[in-house]
Amino acid sequence: MTSLTLIARRTVLCALIGLVLPPRAGIADGPDPLPSWREGASKASIVRFVETVTRESSPEFVPVPERIAVFDNDGTLWCEQPAYVQEVFLIDRVKALAPKHPEWKETEPFASALSGARKRLTAAGSKGAATLLAATHAGMTVEEFTLTVSAWLETARHPTTGRPYAAMVYQPMLELLAYLRSHGFKTFIVSGGGIDFMRPWAEKVYGIPPEQVIGSYGKLKYELVDGKPDLLKLPEIGLIDDHAGKPVGIQTFIGRRPIAAFGNSDGDREMLEWTTAGPGARFGLLVHHDDAEREWAYDRQSAIGRLDRALDQAKTAGWTVVSMKNDWGVIFPPSK
Amino acid sequence: MTSLTLIARRTVLCALIGLVLPPRAGIADGPDPLPSWREGASKASIVRFVETVTRESSPEFVPVPERIAVFDNDGTLWCEQPAYVQEVFLIDRVKALAPKHPEWKETEPFASALSGARKRLTAAGSKGAATLLAATHAGMTVEEFTLTVSAWLETARHPTTGRPYAAMVYQPMLELLAYLRSHGFKTFIVSGGGIDFMRPWAEKVYGIPPEQVIGSYGKLKYELVDGKPDLLKLPEIGLIDDHAGKPVGIQTFIGRRPIAAFGNSDGDREMLEWTTAGPGARFGLLVHHDDAEREWAYDRQSAIGRLDRALDQAKTAGWTVVSMKNDWGVIFPPSK
Repeated sequence: MTSLTLIARRTVLCALIGLVLPPRAGIADGPDPLPSWREGASKASIVRFVETVTRESSPEFVPVPERIAVFDNDGTLWCEQPAYVQEVFLIDRVKALAPKHPEWKETEPFASALSGARKRLTAAGSKGAATLLAATHAGMTVEEFTLTVSAWLETARHPTTGRPYAAMVYQPMLELLAYLRSHGFKTFIVSGGGIDFMRPWAEKVYGIPPEQVIGSYGKLKYELVDGKPDLLKLPEIGLIDDHAGKPVGIQTFIGRRPIAAFGNSDGDREMLEWTTAGPGARFGLLVHHDDAEREWAYDRQSAIGRLDRALDQAKTAGWTVVSMKNDWGVIFPPSK
Repeated sequence: MTSLTLIARRTVLCALIGLVLPPRAGIADGPDPLPSWREGASKASIVRFVETVTRESSPEFVPVPERIAVFDNDGTLWCEQPAYVQEVFLIDRVKALAPKHPEWKETEPFASALSGARKRLTAAGSKGAATLLAATHAGMTVEEFTLTVSAWLETARHPTTGRPYAAMVYQPMLELLAYLRSHGFKTFIVSGGGIDFMRPWAEKVYGIPPEQVIGSYGKLKYELVDGKPDLLKLPEIGLIDDHAGKPVGIQTFIGRRPIAAFGNSDGDREMLEWTTAGPGARFGLLVHHDDAEREWAYDRQSAIGRLDRALDQAKTAGWTVVSMKNDWGVIFPPSK
């Protein structure tokens, strides 16, 4: 018997066995694509959904171009405690630019940013934040800003773990991104964070190219400087991609409704609502930060990543709520 | 000698021949991927560019994720004469909605739109256009608008050829889109036309999914109507994706500079300028409408698709100017 005949016989045999034995929760033979997810209801709900929309014989089969999955970033893909990473960047930028602006020492909200008076800074509210954003995130070209972000991310370290921020991403979510992509999904980030802050590193860290990164953005101005075309970042806001701004960002950038949405806070509520209200099989998931030992524990009362109304809605809407403590065997990728 | 050995010998032989003989302008053996393009400088410049950025040994090799190509729509991918298709749609919508608005018969710019007084309509300018757009392109959900566009495109016919508008696309450009995609390019539309007007059919007609269609867009509002989430189209403008708005749209949506840009009018000048000013191999192309017999002939003086300043800049910037008359063997796809 030639080896080709042997392979053919084995294939037929496997196909026959497949008809008799129940499938292993939709995961094909081979290594578990979600090894950092502990077995349980959360992991099973993910695998069941992917199986439902990708098995060709499924009544809820979804063609590849419509397999759109959207992910919040802060608190969903990477750590947002003890402060949003972009907020740390912003304050570092104020400090870096301060020598050129001696008046900032006497002017709010710059003075609070420079002295680390976080409470006073928070009290300055969205108007204070807008002033700081205008001073640090506008007035330069997009390319200059990209270089600044990349350089900062190389050297900045998380205050409690000492790791680079790019290493403070959630290993189970990296596996989930890869698992969905291997099943024909196109993965997008839909974040309240700045689009120009995420795009420089999202491809390297998450495998998500810039054109699949949606975030809050400012207006841009095209201009020629000494005959060289540039795109200047203006201080005017284009979109705040948070809460009800998320479905708006999704429609504007993607132009079709996702079939799966992943978040962790009330800022993601409308995104999950919009996604899961569509026809056919839909999937909504909330990461619940309940692991004070390995990460942080926070939800209804938290100033950062508050999860309150969305947690209630998860019950009625059928969204999967992931317990970081129970569902994740590992939180962060191993140190290199 | 087994057939496997034969194949191996043939492969080695072909590789050796490849080292000796000059490549056929970069097109691999097999059928010509651009059969509707006549041999000549324009076709050669396209093939040479694709070869330059995709051959791994090339000093100007571009990795797949950075192979971004942007295409204008009106006049570049489909016919824009004797009127922009979206303008025809707009006037048809005014007529369809008029019975519910008896006052329109006496009110400008609606009266001119209803009576077909095109000159008076043009005289109403951008303020008149904004009024008509607000009445026909806003005040409904995105899903409702999508259905309206799709239904209209099914029945509307081009006034001089009697063909559906989706058949008034340029066969050579369809081949070019497919040729670029087969070489790892991601193709985007970047049009002054409405994003919500193009997305319903761009995937079927051009193979370009909604998330790769960039156009002018209005603001959206997320709202719950009887507990059902909807995205309402508002009359406020988000971006006019034309002239200097094109590089802005490209940066906002794609987040990196394309390496190839295709247009046909002064509205595309900044897009080509921004694209070809980047480092490494770059490609800019203008479709010149000079074929009065098979299509239309217009450029510097045309009210629609004026090509004046961009035509001059093509010379200094090294953009390819395609003569529809001489470079294209076929204009439209064969009738089905």
